[in-house]
Amino acid sequence: MGGVVVQNIERADPEVVRKLGEAGVATVHEAQGRKGLMAPYMTPIYAGAMVGASAVTISAPPGDNWMVHVAIEQLQAGDILLLAPTSPCDDGYFGDLLATSAMARGCKGLIIDAGVRDVRDLTAMGFPVWSKSVHAQGTIKETVGSVNVPVVCAGAYVRPGDIIVADDDGVCVVAREEAEAVLEKTEARLAAEEGKRQRLAAGELGLDIYDMRGRLEAKGLKYI
Amino acid sequence: MGGVVVQNIERADPEVVRKLGEAGVATVHEAQGRKGLMAPYMTPIYAGAMVGASAVTISAPPGDNWMVHVAIEQLQAGDILLLAPTSPCDDGYFGDLLATSAMARGCKGLIIDAGVRDVRDLTAMGFPVWSKSVHAQGTIKETVGSVNVPVVCAGAYVRPGDIIVADDDGVCVVAREEAEAVLEKTEARLAAEEGKRQRLAAGELGLDIYDMRGRLEAKGLKYI
Amino acid sequence: MGGVVVQNIERADPEVVRKLGEAGVATVHEAQGRKGLMAPYMTPIYAGAMVGASAVTISAPPGDNWMVHVAIEQLQAGDILLLAPTSPCDDGYFGDLLATSAMARGCKGLIIDAGVRDVRDLTAMGFPVWSKSVHAQGTIKETVGSVNVPVVCAGAYVRPGDIIVADDDGVCVVAREEAEAVLEKTEARLAAEEGKRQRLAAGELGLDIYDMRGRLEAKGLKYI
Amino acid sequence: MGGVVVQNIERADPEVVRKLGEAGVATVHEAQGRKGLMAPYMTPIYAGAMVGASAVTISAPPGDNWMVHVAIEQLQAGDILLLAPTSPCDDGYFGDLLATSAMARGCKGLIIDAGVRDVRDLTAMGFPVWSKSVHAQGTIKETVGSVNVPVVCAGAYVRPGDIIVADDDGVCVVAREEAEAVLEKTEARLAAEEGKRQRLAAGELGLDIYDMRGRLEAKGLKYI
Amino acid sequence: MGGVVVQNIERADPEVVRKLGEAGVATVHEAQGRKGLMAPYMTPIYAGAMVGASAVTISAPPGDNWMVHVAIEQLQAGDILLLAPTSPCDDGYFGDLLATSAMARGCKGLIIDAGVRDVRDLTAMGFPVWSKSVHAQGTIKETVGSVNVPVVCAGAYVRPGDIIVADDDGVCVVAREEAEAVLEKTEARLAAEEGKRQRLAAGELGLDIYDMRGRLEAKGLKYI
Amino acid sequence: MGGVVVQNIERADPEVVRKLGEAGVATVHEAQGRKGLMAPYMTPIYAGAMVGASAVTISAPPGDNWMVHVAIEQLQAGDILLLAPTSPCDDGYFGDLLATSAMARGCKGLIIDAGVRDVRDLTAMGFPVWSKSVHAQGTIKETVGSVNVPVVCAGAYVRPGDIIVADDDGVCVVAREEAEAVLEKTEARLAAEEGKRQRLAAGELGLDIYDMRGRLEAKGLKYI
Repeated sequence: MGGVVVQNIERADPEVVRKLGEAGVATVHEAQGRKGLMAPYMTPIYAGAMVGASAVTISAPPGDNWMVHVAIEQLQAGDILLLAPTSPCDDGYFGDLLATSAMARGCKGLIIDAGVRDVRDLTAMGFPVWSKSVHAQGTIKETVGSVNVPVVCAGAYVRPGDIIVADDDGVCVVAREEAEAVLEKTEARLAAEEGKRQRLAAGELGLDIYDMRGRLEAKGLKYI
Repeated sequence: MGGVVVQNIERADPEVVRKLGEAGVATVHEAQGRKGLMAPYMTPIYAGAMVGASAVTISAPPGDNWMVHVAIEQLQAGDILLLAPTSPCDDGYFGDLLATSAMARGCKGLIIDAGVRDVRDLTAMGFPVWSKSVHAQGTIKETVGSVNVPVVCAGAYVRPGDIIVADDDGVCVVAREEAEAVLEKTEARLAAEEGKRQRLAAGELGLDIYDMRGRLEAKGLKYI
Repeated sequence: MGGVVVQNIERADPEVVRKLGEAGVATVHEAQGRKGLMAPYMTPIYAGAMVGASAVTISAPPGDNWMVHVAIEQLQAGDILLLAPTSPCDDGYFGDLLATSAMARGCKGLIIDAGVRDVRDLTAMGFPVWSKSVHAQGTIKETVGSVNVPVVCAGAYVRPGDIIVADDDGVCVVAREEAEAVLEKTEARLAAEEGKRQRLAAGELGLDIYDMRGRLEAKGLKYI
Repeated sequence: MGGVVVQNIERADPEVVRKLGEAGVATVHEAQGRKGLMAPYMTPIYAGAMVGASAVTISAPPGDNWMVHVAIEQLQAGDILLLAPTSPCDDGYFGDLLATSAMARGCKGLIIDAGVRDVRDLTAMGFPVWSKSVHAQGTIKETVGSVNVPVVCAGAYVRPGDIIVADDDGVCVVAREEAEAVLEKTEARLAAEEGKRQRLAAGELGLDIYDMRGRLEAKGLKYI
Repeated sequence: MGGVVVQNIERADPEVVRKLGEAGVATVHEAQGRKGLMAPYMTPIYAGAMVGASAVTISAPPGDNWMVHVAIEQLQAGDILLLAPTSPCDDGYFGDLLATSAMARGCKGLIIDAGVRDVRDLTAMGFPVWSKSVHAQGTIKETVGSVNVPVVCAGAYVRPGDIIVADDDGVCVVAREEAEAVLEKTEARLAAEEGKRQRLAAGELGLDIYDMRGRLEAKGLKYI
Repeated sequence: MGGVVVQNIERADPEVVRKLGEAGVATVHEAQGRKGLMAPYMTPIYAGAMVGASAVTISAPPGDNWMVHVAIEQLQAGDILLLAPTSPCDDGYFGDLLATSAMARGCKGLIIDAGVRDVRDLTAMGFPVWSKSVHAQGTIKETVGSVNVPVVCAGAYVRPGDIIVADDDGVCVVAREEAEAVLEKTEARLAAEEGKRQRLAAGELGLDIYDMRGRLEAKGLKYI
């Protein structure tokens, strides 16, 4: 029952990936029709990181981090590691040594539906991680898994090469082949929001800007 | 089955509200007889914020943030928005655009028994939020709820105009008509604590300051 | 059914305790054969604290912090308070007054499988706490418990005088009589890691450093 | 800071209460506009019980069941005990002795936002309980609380004399003064459902019975 | 942003589906290499049900059950409904009326990563449901979703027509195109287990049957 | 880092063990001073089982059930298996084949701070299990652990040969050397309860039987 490592995966245009990362999770998630969002238990180990990157995926047995070493060899600059265990697990699959190795290959961070450790060092290194837990519990290297196969991570379906957008709001996945279309909608959304922000900051009400009063009355809202 | 918006609510004396906010949650909660505390899952999006403010309450359907726009029109300077969904929900009802609008009307923050998003922007804006979760998941605008009606928020009963005290320890509600009496007890408590703090810092033991040794012995405590 | 206070407990060599604290949780946990780790819900109230200290243990009834006062008298410089309730509880047993008293006796922090409050003050004081929750809910002083007896804290068995190692990764317990042996293995581990860190930073792969390729192939891993 | 016991509370018409109980939680909850539902963690200790009863409320300190004895004296036939702790707690406040006492006064069961024990005996006695947890952990009798005051129980606001409807779906509260109006709507709903049930059982589709096809198309649903 | 309904989906051979259902979750999960298992929070509303069926999938907005009506029209005898909300939700999407309609079309049950209600009626009808929660909270019909598209349900990726195996141990998904191969391995496994069961029942030890003693010794296990 | 198997452990008098089992968890827990209770997440796979038995303990790596085979050889009639993973884990360590083997040696059930599977079969066999979860997820056999060493299981400290009492209320541990003393107190408690039960059933109030009215008044309780 051995695993597989897919070596040549397609990635989206690096410029598109970068811009999606800068737009942030909430905006990208809206722009692509509210899909691809991971569960809210995926939290960053430190505040303020923003990432756009291509996923190198890892399907790993519970409590076994052997495949992380295998995956690091597959990294290209601009990639992010994404690990989903095959059974729910909070163990600390990843620490500062693996981060050192991944950074040496241009890796932009880690998304892991399990635990991470050495978070003080990772923070000092500026290596961002979004994880289900922080846990020093170590893992073993006994059972093979797979690298660059589709996985379900924190409720989202991710294929190798899909784009990961992550910030303080959580983690969102964009399908590789939809990246450009999503970026277009994202930028349109950002432009539209800017005008609204200025009007709202000036004291105009959303009730008026979005013309909601009539519809609210039609639905039966009463002022007393 | 339309909702209602109560437009004229009573508020407590702003000076009393401000002083309760400065005293902090733990002290105010004790001073009013250990009632009004919200569940510990209500956490601030950034550390260090302290708020005392009058509640403008929102009863909203799960996953529907329409009423937030309605509530913002009801805000006065010194108020805080407080949203309770009618069914448990982690969706992100609130982000930076709504915060911009609320701040333009003098709003001091948000208490929400659901999710919030754009937390990086909210942090940069200095708009404090205490929430059940951080989640980028968007909401719809299809069903009306109510504004300025009594709600249950994270286990606490809140009526419009009640005082919200929030800091790094969580969120506490003070009934509007009890505000002055609670402030009096709060200030007495703070004064009493100050003397004890100095004695404790000097190395005196609580066992002696509070004269506990006899009662402990009577209850059967043995030193070996 | 009164409790007991054990007054004379043995402690490990302070220098050994200090060095274990500097090595950090993940390393110490590995060095002692992956035992003694507390559950991952034990989190620090602020990032960056690192502690190595001898445990003064408290077995307390749920919602009753009387024994904390009793325990503080038993503290020596270099100790840490460790509280385990006899039934699951999130109440805030400990705040800034107790911290003031404990610090006056040289206490290095608190490990509590329950709640803590006044976290803003505790952070300002530099008094680190690892807790299950942050909760302003107060406690009573009605039922005696015990001080310096063995307890189960967040899933770990702790005896008075055992060494607590705590940092951003969580909390680990080292048996007092194993402290020197664990420190030896810890230091060997740190030395070995340093060499690997440099090779990994230089771009060498773990696959090669640890000579994993043959074993992976033997287990059936396939590259495609 | 003593508590109070309100001795004379108003109750709804027993016939109305009984009929609401027979209609069940889901139907009553819909009939009253989707309010008053407790959190889904409130589960019955055995399947199949259905209750309609008037609430005798208990506000109790965490881990202290003294007030249950006080409340039992206030019970009339057709009442149900409802306990809300003032801080989250899973301890077992209630067992077979208290149930024996409550049954002797005509009590129809217990709603408790905390723990219960002796569930095997309670099941054999036919005394239904909806609780947050099953836990043998005992409680103390040291601090007074209050009986027949408004409480928040599992997210719902309950006043003494309000009607509790509970079955395998959970627990719902009906305001005493709305009981008759809610029963009317409940019965209308049950009558309407019966006709629909027969048509659905015969193979007709909800899409047709509720005439949904046009509106679905207007919202953009596409068949492919 | 309308949804889609895929009307013609492929299904596996009904005999294969039936036999997988009879083999049960634990065996099928092992036979297909430990993949496809849903999270353990998916529990049956009553004990003892065993199902093998083809999935008609529903991707529904949080708190909106409109698509269930649409999906019921797509059911064939031997199918099972499977609903995944696009954001975490505990609301009760499904009750006895929908079950009546689904049963009229030969539906074998429901898998829902959200809530269900009327569980007493569903139990009496013999309509099995595996759900995340039991909750009477109603849903609305305002936003379209999709039917018969791939979804992530309780951590498992499910495509329309995939086989669902469910029993008291939980829920497992078998890819439609792998159904026959998995059944073969399942039956081999069942046959092998039968022989072992008899030897174990006769008192033989697994240590001997599986010849483990040597390998345990090699790994360092010591008897004392 | 190999494990150990302790072969000769002491057990308590079988008659004492049996009687403790018949007394039930709540009573035994009270009788021994409210200690030894496991966390309330430990629930039986079917209602109605009651067990008193001597613990054969297993300390197992997360997701690895190899040691269960080793432990079964150590079982004597009247024992119960008790497994604690060294890191939190929900995997299904145990199913019907292992139960068949354990029953053949007179084992009375399983206490496991992790998952179990084949619960339908285990129920049919009358093999009771108290577990943290029900999960079909399989485990591996790669890493040795230990048998008959002290463990922490669901928050309770258990040594081999300690007595396990388990029923629908959960699981409690009695120290082997305290078994007789605890049984004596248990029987005294049962006798005392019987008289009270009859008085309560006859309508007498706990307020009077326990003479609480004066103390309640002294604590400030007011009737209004």
